[in-house]
Amino acid sequence: MLTTMGKDAFKLTIHMVSSLDGFIAKKDNSISWFETVDNYEKGVTLTEQDTAAFLKSIDCYLIGSQTYEHALKLSKSYGWVYGDVPVIVLTHRDLPVDGHNVEFYSGDLHELVSERLKPNYQHVWMAGGAVLAKDLIRLRLADEIRVSIIPIILGEGKLFFDQIQQEQMLHVKNVTAYKNGIVELHYEIRK
Amino acid sequence: MLTTMGKDAFKLTIHMVSSLDGFIAKKDNSISWFETVDNYEKGVTLTEQDTAAFLKSIDCYLIGSQTYEHALKLSKSYGWVYGDVPVIVLTHRDLPVDGHNVEFYSGDLHELVSERLKPNYQHVWMAGGAVLAKDLIRLRLADEIRVSIIPIILGEGKLFFDQIQQEQMLHVKNVTAYKNGIVELHYEIRK
Repeated sequence: MLTTMGKDAFKLTIHMVSSLDGFIAKKDNSISWFETVDNYEKGVTLTEQDTAAFLKSIDCYLIGSQTYEHALKLSKSYGWVYGDVPVIVLTHRDLPVDGHNVEFYSGDLHELVSERLKPNYQHVWMAGGAVLAKDLIRLRLADEIRVSIIPIILGEGKLFFDQIQQEQMLHVKNVTAYKNGIVELHYEIRK
Repeated sequence: MLTTMGKDAFKLTIHMVSSLDGFIAKKDNSISWFETVDNYEKGVTLTEQDTAAFLKSIDCYLIGSQTYEHALKLSKSYGWVYGDVPVIVLTHRDLPVDGHNVEFYSGDLHELVSERLKPNYQHVWMAGGAVLAKDLIRLRLADEIRVSIIPIILGEGKLFFDQIQQEQMLHVKNVTAYKNGIVELHYEIRK
């Protein structure tokens, strides 16, 4: 059954975790720098309830194929990170399925958003794939960007905002500094 | 006369104004995007007193030669932006002087900091030149980084943190979101 919701109710959020110098991955793909811990006195801490309530607001995850493969690999040790929430994987490849709530999609991104996402979900969370993120921003299909900045300069690696080639005005929705030194910048993309 | 101050009293701060995607200049060098105005309800506003008190804490400016030339050009219409505060310009070129409190320096950066800056100043503000900023970070001569993020994605231009090639841990000192949508991230570079 399709649920019909007002256009305003739908939101596609792009999330990235980045170093201060804008890198989302090191050259060797190691992710230990994600655990960089700072101590920012004035920062806030999320309770488990906060996190649970927030995660509940997400009713669909959108990820690229490499993010999917990474999640599959991690699931062997830590479980499936997206829980029971539907996950749509953008890919042109044949990828293994593993009993999770996953669909694959290889078509046009405009159609994906207007025909698959908007009629069925309220808050879609794009959780990885810099190329996919860039395409969504360029095509003006994303509504929000949330950047979690880790207190580190990596110096080299894979840039998130690598030449979007398009100017886009933003509106600050929220700025949150956490006790562990991570700063979350939450922007709305002005249409 | 040299004033002697404890090592801890000295601070070299690198300041940059950047788009969310890390650019400090557009390809055409236009700076109208600096005036991007957002309205962030929860943001703060600085009073003239706040600004004056802050500027008073800076007792030396350090800039690259292009920033100097830019300031000279702007001074014809708007006055000299650095007031009476000493300005040290890093350059290997012969540059025009124009009656301001300016010295030129072309030597080693370690010596600059230990022999010229530390004995004479308390708070040196590095106000421009991405190359100079990068050198200071690489040589571990900078103490703090303050990034003012304008609420815009530029999409292309000149990157500030362009491949520093070195990892550096940071400590969050302050995060300030302003009413006009500019977010200032203030980090200490961990030594």
